[in-house]
Amino acid sequence: MSQSVKKPLAALQKAIHKRIVVKLKSDIEYRGKMCNIDPYMNVILEDAEEYNKNTLSANYGKVVIRGNNVLFVKIEDDF
Amino acid sequence: MSQSVKKPLAALQKAIHKRIVVKLKSDIEYRGKMCNIDPYMNVILEDAEEYNKNTLSANYGKVVIRGNNVLFVKIEDDF
Amino acid sequence: MSQSVKKPLAALQKAIHKRIVVKLKSDIEYRGKMCNIDPYMNVILEDAEEYNKNTLSANYGKVVIRGNNVLFVKIEDDF
Amino acid sequence: MSQSVKKPLAALQKAIHKRIVVKLKSDIEYRGKMCNIDPYMNVILEDAEEYNKNTLSANYGKVVIRGNNVLFVKIEDDF
Amino acid sequence: MSQSVKKPLAALQKAIHKRIVVKLKSDIEYRGKMCNIDPYMNVILEDAEEYNKNTLSANYGKVVIRGNNVLFVKIEDDF
Amino acid sequence: MSQSVKKPLAALQKAIHKRIVVKLKSDIEYRGKMCNIDPYMNVILEDAEEYNKNTLSANYGKVVIRGNNVLFVKIEDDF
Amino acid sequence: MSQSVKKPLAALQKAIHKRIVVKLKSDIEYRGKMCNIDPYMNVILEDAEEYNKNTLSANYGKVVIRGNNVLFVKIEDDF
Repeated sequence: MSQSVKKPLAALQKAIHKRIVVKLKSDIEYRGKMCNIDPYMNVILEDAEEYNKNTLSANYGKVVIRGNNVLFVKIEDDF
Repeated sequence: MSQSVKKPLAALQKAIHKRIVVKLKSDIEYRGKMCNIDPYMNVILEDAEEYNKNTLSANYGKVVIRGNNVLFVKIEDDF
Repeated sequence: MSQSVKKPLAALQKAIHKRIVVKLKSDIEYRGKMCNIDPYMNVILEDAEEYNKNTLSANYGKVVIRGNNVLFVKIEDDF
Repeated sequence: MSQSVKKPLAALQKAIHKRIVVKLKSDIEYRGKMCNIDPYMNVILEDAEEYNKNTLSANYGKVVIRGNNVLFVKIEDDF
Repeated sequence: MSQSVKKPLAALQKAIHKRIVVKLKSDIEYRGKMCNIDPYMNVILEDAEEYNKNTLSANYGKVVIRGNNVLFVKIEDDF
Repeated sequence: MSQSVKKPLAALQKAIHKRIVVKLKSDIEYRGKMCNIDPYMNVILEDAEEYNKNTLSANYGKVVIRGNNVLFVKIEDDF
Repeated sequence: MSQSVKKPLAALQKAIHKRIVVKLKSDIEYRGKMCNIDPYMNVILEDAEEYNKNTLSANYGKVVIRGNNVLFVKIEDDF
């Protein structure tokens, strides 16, 4: 089996520079390029777009999202 | 007694690569193949499908769910 | 006094393999056989049945419930 | 002054085997005999009765209540 | 300046045996004599009276309030 | 640049004896003289006044506010 | 690649003295100049303006926002 098994936080680290979707507990989504992430899931997002029920609701540029608000992180490309 | 008694987190570790259902506190479910999980219950889910009251509401591919949102994890196969 | 006084977490450990009811903060109950439990009250439940206001609402097989959702654990047999 | 000043958790330890009322954040009360308690306020209650606005709503036998749900513990006898 | 500056938790310790009001996040108040308090703000209250919008709603005798529910503690006498 | 850069908790320490506004998550404000504060943002407030939507709703004298309820602390004077 | 990859908290540290927007879980925003920030995301904001649905609702001068209320921090300039 060539595919190694990564722990959740290591998998997120590996996805740095990829496009991600950060879904919050409040159901709002932030989409953009992940610049970095730490073990608490604090995440830097570039060209961040806010989506509310799949409708673009705001553009934020570069934001740092506090990890405790995160429901899940989806990586657009395989990771 | 041949069946060993596993601690909850060890039992989850043993279920890596099996299909699971992750039920959230918000009652939403994510179903897919578990790629990995850590002691905080952060979990990588592949081919993740979102269900809302047993109706498929979204397909997400690969996601990392933050453990603190989890209500329970159900393993489809015995574990 | 022959009856020893157990700490709450030790008492739960002693009830492994007994039938329990796990009541959640959301008032939903999960009933089944407890396979194991850890100090955080993460609990493995076998033949788990979900009850909502004393009505069976779902069968889940084997689940791992995340401890922070637990309101109380009731042991069917003495423990 | 003969009466010693006990810290809150030591005072609860001293009340083991006494009747208590455990009031939850949700305003529900559990009344019964306290078998044991730990510093997190996880508490074993025997002959536990559930009261909702001072009306008996359920009998639970022996339960372990997870400490983080507790609003206060009232000891029926002096402690 | 003769008046020493006390840290919040030391100031609460100094007020043991004084009358206090414990205001909760839920806006309910418990008034009584403080027997003891610990750094988590778990507090033993004697002759505890419950007030709801400044109306006496219950008498509880001696209770141990779990600190995480506390909004503020008011000391009746100077401290 | 003569003005030194203080960390948030050090800046709060420096404001002891000044008038502050403590805004809570619940939107209620407590205004008064800060006697002391600790790193958890537990704060002693003297001559504490409660404001609800900018209307004075209560006078509390000296209170110790538990830090986890705080949204922000505003210092009336520069700090 | 000349652009270094910063961890989320290091990136916030680097943005000290820049204008930021602090978005709270409650959807309210505070805009101002960031004087300092710590790893918990406690942040000192100067000339803080409160916005509610993009409408200016209050001016606060200098405030220390408690980190656990933060949803995200947006830096106006590149960082």
